[in-house]
Amino acid sequence: MFSRQLAEDAARIETQFDLVMDGLDDLPVTRAMRYACEGGKRLRGFLVLESARMLGVDPARAIWAATGIEALHAYSLVHDDLPCMDDDDLRRGRPTVHKAWDEGTAVLAGDALQALAFELAGHPDCGDAQVRADLTLSLARASGARGMVLGQALDIAAETSETPLTLDQITRLQAGKTGALIEWSACAGARLAGADIAPLSRYARALGLAFQIADDILDEEGDAEKAGKRLRKDAEAGKATFVSLLGLDGAKARAAELADQAEAALAPYGAGAQCLRQAARFVISRDS
Amino acid sequence: MFSRQLAEDAARIETQFDLVMDGLDDLPVTRAMRYACEGGKRLRGFLVLESARMLGVDPARAIWAATGIEALHAYSLVHDDLPCMDDDDLRRGRPTVHKAWDEGTAVLAGDALQALAFELAGHPDCGDAQVRADLTLSLARASGARGMVLGQALDIAAETSETPLTLDQITRLQAGKTGALIEWSACAGARLAGADIAPLSRYARALGLAFQIADDILDEEGDAEKAGKRLRKDAEAGKATFVSLLGLDGAKARAAELADQAEAALAPYGAGAQCLRQAARFVISRDS
Repeated sequence: MFSRQLAEDAARIETQFDLVMDGLDDLPVTRAMRYACEGGKRLRGFLVLESARMLGVDPARAIWAATGIEALHAYSLVHDDLPCMDDDDLRRGRPTVHKAWDEGTAVLAGDALQALAFELAGHPDCGDAQVRADLTLSLARASGARGMVLGQALDIAAETSETPLTLDQITRLQAGKTGALIEWSACAGARLAGADIAPLSRYARALGLAFQIADDILDEEGDAEKAGKRLRKDAEAGKATFVSLLGLDGAKARAAELADQAEAALAPYGAGAQCLRQAARFVISRDS
Repeated sequence: MFSRQLAEDAARIETQFDLVMDGLDDLPVTRAMRYACEGGKRLRGFLVLESARMLGVDPARAIWAATGIEALHAYSLVHDDLPCMDDDDLRRGRPTVHKAWDEGTAVLAGDALQALAFELAGHPDCGDAQVRADLTLSLARASGARGMVLGQALDIAAETSETPLTLDQITRLQAGKTGALIEWSACAGARLAGADIAPLSRYARALGLAFQIADDILDEEGDAEKAGKRLRKDAEAGKATFVSLLGLDGAKARAAELADQAEAALAPYGAGAQCLRQAARFVISRDS
């Protein structure tokens, strides 16, 4: 049920990107934007679409927010991969944008994808003005210096620090770096429905942290070919991870505990939340 | 009248930035964000505040949009100055962000400033949901791959092109690169007031183009110390500019003609538009 839905939603998002990108001038920067948005699991976009479906929101409204969050995620990857950041050559099994084009094109394509994310999340077809104002303001907060960029800034600060991060510090770092967008995605359905975001927010906070712990486990145990990116770079750089702090077994136990918490948070939605429950199981068992 | 108002508005925007930035963690990235937002003429912020005043909007509402557009402008400068883009060491008379910190910090600070711009333009105190949804959606369109970034992408494409740009092409390039944000700024007052944006849009399109022609004239005739940045780089790079295409006298005549057009567009507002009229004169006579 979950896997089929994820694949269906990924295809829907791909089609929507085609539609959106077709309206742009044909230039290296716009080609790089499209390239950067291809592939990926589309977990964030799925969370938007599925939370919206669960709450009875028309998918024709939710698709804009789903495509918007994937554009924002894509921008963050393009900039993260730059030589002055993580310096990665490979992403989703293909050359990174600055490798396929050049650094200037990668900076600009990322910048334009961030603007596009706000354009899509605030698209007139998302809903009434209240819904659109709510979606864009919460997205700005989730992605900026109190959300995703804060996590990235703490990550950079940790690299130059003498002492390795504690578990509390790495949890706060990851709550920003990956957690904020995952939380926005799951809450988007409630925002689109004009419903209370609290249960989905609790679900997503547990899910986001489980996702990151699973990422650290994958970084330790995974197969670079399946993952489509370089692995074990955190360990090589001597950076603290959930695995280095909790051990491999401890990290797996913590991820399972968080998946339980995520499931429990969905209790108010009953049987309708089945697919989101499966998503929580998926994030801790994925191999890429 | 105009000069005093510009100085007063610049001080107001500075105070607002202090307020906004005080809420952020103290990290290199957030310090770089604040640094990047210091100084500058604040022409865009002034256009927001003055168009709002003219239409009777409470400045306490307009200040959020004014600070937002200055955050967006600051992000574009930080990224423009990067080694992989224009590679500039000096901005507003001080080291550029990647010189004062490093490239990774500059990329992240710019990214966070873009998100901040949307957070400020969509701030609850800007007005009702309709106003906020309108401000943020139009800002996303003005700054992305159909606005500012399109202009930058066309600029990069022109650098590698065999044939120099025509007047039509450079006009389209600049309409994106600097025109889109100037137009958004002048129209913000009408959006805040829920009024027709058409006259302010006509005003700003003429003003923006006059501004860019004046910039090209300044690049040719100006004093690098007063300008606080490197000059004559377009000419050195053999790039087409309004001056290379129209000649110095032709460019000055065209800028004056556009300032007249900008003034004429303000006719519906009568005497209340006096300060915006003076702004049109200012942009073609400035020395920095």
